[in-house]
Amino acid sequence: MNMISRDVIAAENARREGALKSDYAHLGEQLARRGIDIDAVKRKVAAYAVAVPSWGVGTGGTRFARFPGAGEPRNIFDKLEDCAVIHELTRATPTVSLHIPWDKVSDLGALKEKGAALGLGFDAMNSNTFSDAPGQEHSYKFGSLSHADAATRRQAVEHNVECIEIGRKLGSKALTVWIGDGTNFPGQADFTRSFERYLEAMKAIYRHLPDDWRIFSEHKMFEPAFYSTVVQDWGTNYLIAKELGEKAYCLVDLGHHAPNVNIEMIVARLIQFGKLGGFHFNDSKYGDDDLDTGSIDPYRLFLVFNELVNAEERKAEGFAPAHMLDQSHNVTDPIESLMRSATEVCRAYAQGLIVDREALAGYQDDNDALMASETLKAAFRTDVEPILAMARQEAGGAIDPVAAYRAAGYRTKVANERPAVVGGGGGIV
Amino acid sequence: MNMISRDVIAAENARREGALKSDYAHLGEQLARRGIDIDAVKRKVAAYAVAVPSWGVGTGGTRFARFPGAGEPRNIFDKLEDCAVIHELTRATPTVSLHIPWDKVSDLGALKEKGAALGLGFDAMNSNTFSDAPGQEHSYKFGSLSHADAATRRQAVEHNVECIEIGRKLGSKALTVWIGDGTNFPGQADFTRSFERYLEAMKAIYRHLPDDWRIFSEHKMFEPAFYSTVVQDWGTNYLIAKELGEKAYCLVDLGHHAPNVNIEMIVARLIQFGKLGGFHFNDSKYGDDDLDTGSIDPYRLFLVFNELVNAEERKAEGFAPAHMLDQSHNVTDPIESLMRSATEVCRAYAQGLIVDREALAGYQDDNDALMASETLKAAFRTDVEPILAMARQEAGGAIDPVAAYRAAGYRTKVANERPAVVGGGGGIV
Amino acid sequence: MNMISRDVIAAENARREGALKSDYAHLGEQLARRGIDIDAVKRKVAAYAVAVPSWGVGTGGTRFARFPGAGEPRNIFDKLEDCAVIHELTRATPTVSLHIPWDKVSDLGALKEKGAALGLGFDAMNSNTFSDAPGQEHSYKFGSLSHADAATRRQAVEHNVECIEIGRKLGSKALTVWIGDGTNFPGQADFTRSFERYLEAMKAIYRHLPDDWRIFSEHKMFEPAFYSTVVQDWGTNYLIAKELGEKAYCLVDLGHHAPNVNIEMIVARLIQFGKLGGFHFNDSKYGDDDLDTGSIDPYRLFLVFNELVNAEERKAEGFAPAHMLDQSHNVTDPIESLMRSATEVCRAYAQGLIVDREALAGYQDDNDALMASETLKAAFRTDVEPILAMARQEAGGAIDPVAAYRAAGYRTKVANERPAVVGGGGGIV
Amino acid sequence: MNMISRDVIAAENARREGALKSDYAHLGEQLARRGIDIDAVKRKVAAYAVAVPSWGVGTGGTRFARFPGAGEPRNIFDKLEDCAVIHELTRATPTVSLHIPWDKVSDLGALKEKGAALGLGFDAMNSNTFSDAPGQEHSYKFGSLSHADAATRRQAVEHNVECIEIGRKLGSKALTVWIGDGTNFPGQADFTRSFERYLEAMKAIYRHLPDDWRIFSEHKMFEPAFYSTVVQDWGTNYLIAKELGEKAYCLVDLGHHAPNVNIEMIVARLIQFGKLGGFHFNDSKYGDDDLDTGSIDPYRLFLVFNELVNAEERKAEGFAPAHMLDQSHNVTDPIESLMRSATEVCRAYAQGLIVDREALAGYQDDNDALMASETLKAAFRTDVEPILAMARQEAGGAIDPVAAYRAAGYRTKVANERPAVVGGGGGIV
Repeated sequence: MNMISRDVIAAENARREGALKSDYAHLGEQLARRGIDIDAVKRKVAAYAVAVPSWGVGTGGTRFARFPGAGEPRNIFDKLEDCAVIHELTRATPTVSLHIPWDKVSDLGALKEKGAALGLGFDAMNSNTFSDAPGQEHSYKFGSLSHADAATRRQAVEHNVECIEIGRKLGSKALTVWIGDGTNFPGQADFTRSFERYLEAMKAIYRHLPDDWRIFSEHKMFEPAFYSTVVQDWGTNYLIAKELGEKAYCLVDLGHHAPNVNIEMIVARLIQFGKLGGFHFNDSKYGDDDLDTGSIDPYRLFLVFNELVNAEERKAEGFAPAHMLDQSHNVTDPIESLMRSATEVCRAYAQGLIVDREALAGYQDDNDALMASETLKAAFRTDVEPILAMARQEAGGAIDPVAAYRAAGYRTKVANERPAVVGGGGGIV
Repeated sequence: MNMISRDVIAAENARREGALKSDYAHLGEQLARRGIDIDAVKRKVAAYAVAVPSWGVGTGGTRFARFPGAGEPRNIFDKLEDCAVIHELTRATPTVSLHIPWDKVSDLGALKEKGAALGLGFDAMNSNTFSDAPGQEHSYKFGSLSHADAATRRQAVEHNVECIEIGRKLGSKALTVWIGDGTNFPGQADFTRSFERYLEAMKAIYRHLPDDWRIFSEHKMFEPAFYSTVVQDWGTNYLIAKELGEKAYCLVDLGHHAPNVNIEMIVARLIQFGKLGGFHFNDSKYGDDDLDTGSIDPYRLFLVFNELVNAEERKAEGFAPAHMLDQSHNVTDPIESLMRSATEVCRAYAQGLIVDREALAGYQDDNDALMASETLKAAFRTDVEPILAMARQEAGGAIDPVAAYRAAGYRTKVANERPAVVGGGGGIV
Repeated sequence: MNMISRDVIAAENARREGALKSDYAHLGEQLARRGIDIDAVKRKVAAYAVAVPSWGVGTGGTRFARFPGAGEPRNIFDKLEDCAVIHELTRATPTVSLHIPWDKVSDLGALKEKGAALGLGFDAMNSNTFSDAPGQEHSYKFGSLSHADAATRRQAVEHNVECIEIGRKLGSKALTVWIGDGTNFPGQADFTRSFERYLEAMKAIYRHLPDDWRIFSEHKMFEPAFYSTVVQDWGTNYLIAKELGEKAYCLVDLGHHAPNVNIEMIVARLIQFGKLGGFHFNDSKYGDDDLDTGSIDPYRLFLVFNELVNAEERKAEGFAPAHMLDQSHNVTDPIESLMRSATEVCRAYAQGLIVDREALAGYQDDNDALMASETLKAAFRTDVEPILAMARQEAGGAIDPVAAYRAAGYRTKVANERPAVVGGGGGIV
Repeated sequence: MNMISRDVIAAENARREGALKSDYAHLGEQLARRGIDIDAVKRKVAAYAVAVPSWGVGTGGTRFARFPGAGEPRNIFDKLEDCAVIHELTRATPTVSLHIPWDKVSDLGALKEKGAALGLGFDAMNSNTFSDAPGQEHSYKFGSLSHADAATRRQAVEHNVECIEIGRKLGSKALTVWIGDGTNFPGQADFTRSFERYLEAMKAIYRHLPDDWRIFSEHKMFEPAFYSTVVQDWGTNYLIAKELGEKAYCLVDLGHHAPNVNIEMIVARLIQFGKLGGFHFNDSKYGDDDLDTGSIDPYRLFLVFNELVNAEERKAEGFAPAHMLDQSHNVTDPIESLMRSATEVCRAYAQGLIVDREALAGYQDDNDALMASETLKAAFRTDVEPILAMARQEAGGAIDPVAAYRAAGYRTKVANERPAVVGGGGGIV
C-alpha cells in the first residue's frame, strides 16, 4: 500500500540522478583521501531510523492561536497515512509513536493492521496527564503523578498502565512519561513532598512494565509550569531512572534545557552512567520552541550525534537510545517539516560517522585544542547530502523528498478528503 | 451598584482595624525618623491607579491545556462585573482595558453605561491581529501588519482603526498594538522588508489616531514566533515610536525581554528620550510567563518603580506612563490574582516614594556604591503594607482584599450563574 | 584582641538604641499576632554563623582590570585582622575559610594562634588548581584533576592532600574542591574520559580525607572554561558525591547556574538525597558575578533559606550545610560588603524562620496557590532588621555595622600601614 | 619582508594542490548547476579582508588565571610580525587594529614603516579607559566617559583624542570606543545622568574627529560591570550614533548580547537605519567568551553574513561596515586561532554569496517557510573550502594555513627570541 505513487518518485529521481551520481563519486573520492569508505557510511545511514510522533502530522499552535493547515488528519488512521508518506519518501522513519488518549481507538487490531499495511511499526507509547480528557474524574490542573491528592495520582498511574496495555497489543516496547506537573508560584507546592509523590507513582507504573519494555522519563525546564517543574532537568531525571530500576532511562528533548546549557555534555554523562534512553529531536532558539530539527543550530545537533557515534563505536555499555522527532509545525506543512527533520538527523549521524576519531583522540591527549576542534568542524563541513540521497534512492525513497512530495500532490488530495479542523489545541509535547 | 456587599467589607475591616492602626502609627514613627511624612505617602498611593485587562478575569492557559475555573465571565459585561469587584476591594483599578474583537458588542452605549454604573472607566484599547477571528477574510498565520500580502496588511490596519472608533465611543484615549508577527525559521522573511511593511501599516493607523490619543507599540522577544519577531526589543520599539511621531510611545511588558536583561535601565532610557508610553505589569522567571506581578522578583519591580518615581519627582518631560496589569491566571482565581497584583504595584510605588533621593544622589556622586545600594534596599525592606491598607480602607476598600473577597462568596455566586467554559484559548497578551 | 574599639561601637549603638527598642517592641507585637515569639527567632539568628573567605577581604577584579583599594591585606595575617573586624561588628562570622597556596605560611602554629587571639576559627579549606603557582612543575593550563596527563593529575591530587594536612593543623573539618577544568572548543576533550579521570583523582583525594572531615565538590556552568566545564551542574556534582562516598557532598554557589534556573529547587533535591554540603553565598545578574549577597534578587535568597529552614525544622536526615560567603568586591570596601552580606544571610534566615509553615502546608494540600505564595511573601515582606540588630547588639556587635566601621576609621588606619597592592589578580572563586 | 618562508608555503601547497584542483572543479560543476559562477565567487572572496587586533596575538586569560604561551610578542613591533604571519598565510588580514596605550610607541614613523615593510596597514584605533595606565591621574574604577567627576571624564576624552592623533599619523580612519562604564549594584549610579555625561563626553571626542574618519561605539550587556552597563545594547548604541552625527556608527561584537538574542536581526536593523559601523567577530556560548569565530555556532555567523551580503547586493545606503576579529586566545596558539577565524569569516561570506536570493525572495513572498529556510541551509551546507583555499593560494597564501604555519616552525623560532611573559592581563575587548 503506497501513499505516494512510485512513478512520481521515479520520475523525480530520474531528474536528479545524474547530478547525484557525480556528487557521490566526488565525495567518495574526497572521503577516500581521509581513509573513509563512503559506501560503508552509506550502509550505516541506510540502517538508521528515527520515529515520527503521531501528533506531529497535525498543525501545531501556541497559546495565542493555532492556524490550521489544509487536509489535517482527522484521527490516528489519517495520521498513519501521513506518517507513511514520510517514510516512503525518506526511508528513515519506519515507526510511529502514539499519544494516548488522542490516538485511542476501539479496534486496536485494525490499527495494527493499518500500520502493517503501510509498512509502519509502533514505537514508544506516550501518556498524557498534562491536559484533561473529556469526562475525566479528577483534573490535572494542579498536577498528575505528583498531585497532592492520592486519587488523582492513582488515576494518572492507571492511565499510564493503560498506555502500556495498548502498546503491548501494538508491539511497542517502551513508555514515555512526560508530565507538566509543577508550580507557577513560590510556595505553591513543597518541592520534596511533590517529588516523593512523583517517585511513588512512577514506581507504581514501573511495576506494570513488561520485562522487555523500557520506561523513559523526560525532563523539561519550564512550560506549562512557570516557576518550578517537578522533573526540571537531567539531574532530577537521572535520580528518577536510578530510583526506578534498570528498565528506567532518561529521555532528552533538545528544547527542554536552560539557556546556554551544553546539551551534548548531558548526553555524554547519561551515556557514561548507563541511563540515556533516547531523544526527542527538534530545534529551538528561546525555549521549547519545537522547531524543525537542525533549523536553528545545526552544529549543536552534530555535536550531540558526535557523542552518539562515539558511544556506538566504543560499544558503551547499555547504549541503545530511542530516536524520535518531536516538533510543533505551526507555519509549515507538517509532512514536509518531518521529512526534512528526518533528513537532518540522518545528516548529523552521517557527519558523526566521518569524524576522524583516532586523530581526534590524539589531539585531545596532546591538548591541541585547535586541531581537535578543527577535526570536528572538518566532518561537519563535509556536505554529506549525496550519501543521504543515495541511501534514500537505493531504498526506494526520493532523492529530494520535498520536491517529490509536492510533485505527488498529496496535500491537495487530502485537503479534498479531510474537512478543515477549526480551533482546538494541537497537543504538542 | 456594588458587586461586593459593603457590610462584608466593613465586617472584615473591623477585625483588622486595630492592628492596622497600631502598625500604621509605628510605621509613621519610623518614617518620621527618616524625615518622611507617612500621610503624604499615603495620599500619593491613594491617587495611584493601574488598569485591569478585560481578558485577565478569565482563566488563562498554555498551548498544552487550559483548565477552566468556576464562574468564568461569559462576555464583556460579566468581565466588567469581575473588574468592579477588584476595584471595590482594592480601590486601585478604576479602569478596564478592552480587547477587540473579544470584547466587541453591538451596543456600545450599554457597555459604557455598565462601566459607569460599576464606577469603571475605559483604558487603552487593544487590537488583536495575532489570531484569526471567525469569518475573517485574510489569515494572520504569516503575519498581520507586516504580512507580505497588501490585502492582509490592509485588513489589519482596518481592524486597528475600528478599535480606535470603538474606543472613542467608550472614552478611551489610547491604542495598544501588540502583534505576533515574526518567523519560525531563518530565511522565512526578509527582516528589512518586513519592518518596512510594518512601519507603513503603523503609519496608516497613526493617521487615524485622534489628536488627544496616544498609540503604544509593544515589543516582545519571542512567542508566538520562535526565530524572529518584528518588534523584538526596545531598540526596534523606539525606532517605531520615533518614525511614527509625537503621539507614539513604547509600551514595556516586564516579561518580554531576553534573559538577564536590565529592564529598569530600558525604562530609564525610554523616559530620557521621551518615549515611555506605559507598562504591562506581570512577573516571570523564564519567558513571557505572565505570572502575578511581584510574585517572582519583587525587587526588580521595585527598581522599575524607582525609575518611575525618580522621573515623576524630577518632572521628566513628557512623562505620563499608562499602567496596566497583563497576566495569565492559570492556577489561581483571576480576581484574587489581579487584586494582589494591583496591591503589588501600589507597594512598589510606595517603596519608590520613600527612597531618600537626596542621600542617594550624594552617594552616587561620591561613588559610594555600598551606601547607594543600601539606600534603595532600605526603602525596599520597609514594610509599607500599613500605608496601602490604610489607603484602601479610607477609600472604602478592604484592608485585606482577598480575605474580604472570600468572605463575600463572590466566586461561588457567579459559579452558580455562569455555566462552565470548556476548551477555548484565553488569548493572553 | 579587638580590631574595632569597643567604645566606638558603644557610642554608635547608643545613638540607635532608642529606635531599635521601639522597633523591636513593635515587631514583637506584630509577630505575636501571628503566633511567633520574637525572642525565640532572635536566639536562632544569634546562633547562626556564616564563614568569611580569606580572599574576600582583598579587592577583586575582572579580566579587564583590577582597581586596588586602600589598605589591602598583604598576607593571611592581615586578612585575619580584616575578618576579625567583620565578626566584631556583625557577630555572625566566627570562622574564616582559607585558600591554598595563597594563604600558605611557614608557621601554621602562629596562624592558629592569631586566629584564636582574634576569636576566629578555621572553616573549610580551599585548594587551587585553577591557576599556576610560581615554580609549579606541571601547568594547569589544560586542566588539573581531569588533565590528560597523569603527572599533572597527581600533582593536583597532592596539592589537595596538602590542603587537608594544613587544615588538620588549623582545626578545619572540610575541603572544598572547585576546579576550572573544562574546554573552550567542541572536541578539545572527550567528556567521558575527562570525567573518568576527574573521578579517579577525586577518589585519590578522598582516601586521604580524615574520618571526621567532609569534602565538598562545587559545580559551575562556565568560566574560566567557555565551552564545557567538567563539573558543570548539580547533576554532575551529585554523581561525584555519590561515587565518592558518604563524606562527599555538593556545594552550591548561587552564581554558578544557567540563566533562569530554579536554584532553590536544586537545594531541595540535594537535601532530599542527602548530599547538600553547603553554600557559597553571593548574588548575580548575568553569570558568576560574585556580587554582594542579596543585592540583586533578595527574594531568591529568601527562597533558598526557606528550603534550609524547612529542612532544619523537619530535621532532614544528614542535613548540616556549611555556609560561606564567596564574593568579589570590585567597587566597594570588601569589609563593608562582607558585613552587609553576612547581614543579608542572617536576614534571609530570620525571614525563613517566621514563615507560617503549618498554614503553608495546608494551602499546598488544598492547591491554594495564591495563599501559599502569599504566605511566603508575608514572611519576606516583614522587616526583620530589628531582630538582626538586637541580636548583634546583645552579642557585643554593632546595631549598624557599616556606620560603626566608618566611625572607627579602620580603613584609613590600615591604608597607612599597608602599602598599595598594584596589579595582580584577586583570585576569586 | 616575509615572516614565513615562501618555500615552505610552496612545498606545503604542492602536497595539497592536486586535491584542491579536483575539489574546486567539482564544486564549480555543482555551483554551475545552481547557476553560480565559482570564479566570480572566488574573486569576491579574494577581495574580502578582515582586520586583526594587535592584542589578539598575545595569550588571553580570565580573571582566574592567564597561562602564558611560548614566544609571546613583547611589544607592538613583535605583534606586527605575528600579524604579518597571519596575513602571509591567509591573505585575508591586510590591516591591524591598535590599542592605545598598549601599542603606544615613541616613534610612530618607525611603526608605520614596519607595517609597510610587512605589507600591513592600520585599521581602527582602540582607546582604553577600562583599566588604569601606570601614572594616570584619575582612576577609571568608577567609570570613564560617564564618570561622576568632570576631571576624570576630561582625561578620558583627551585619551580618545590622543588615539585619533596617533591614528592620523598611521593612516587609520576610525576610532572604536568601548568603555567598561557601568555599575555593580542597583542605585550605584543614576542611569540617566550617567548617560547624559557619556553623551556629552562622546560629543567632545566627536568634535575632534577628522572629516574622513568614523567613530564606532560598541555595546555590551555586561562585564566588567555586573548590574548595569552604560552602553548595554544596540538600542542605546543606536541612540548614541544618532545623537553624535553622521560620522558615528554602531559596532557589533557577536558576544556582547543577552542569551538567545537574534543578532542577525540587530544587524539588519542597523543597516536599515544607516548605522551599522562594523563588527568584532568571535564566537561564544555563555557570555563574552571571545572564542574563535565560528567555533561554537557557525550557522549564526552565516546568518549574519547573509544579512551583510544581502545589503551589499542591494547596495543599501551608507553600508560600508568595518570587519575585525576580536578574540581571547587562552588555550590555543593565537596566530593559529586568528588564521582559522579569518578563514571562518571568509567562509561565511562565501556561503552568503551563493545564497539563491531570487528564489529566497520568492519563497518569502509566498510564505513558503520551509523552502525559504532550506534555501539558506543549502548555501550553508555547501563546502566552500575549495573556493577559500584557491583564493588563498592564488594570492600567495597557504592552502592549509595552520599546516604551513606549523611546518614553518615560526612559534619555536620566536619562543627562542622572546622571553616568557609572566602574569599581566591580556586586555581583551
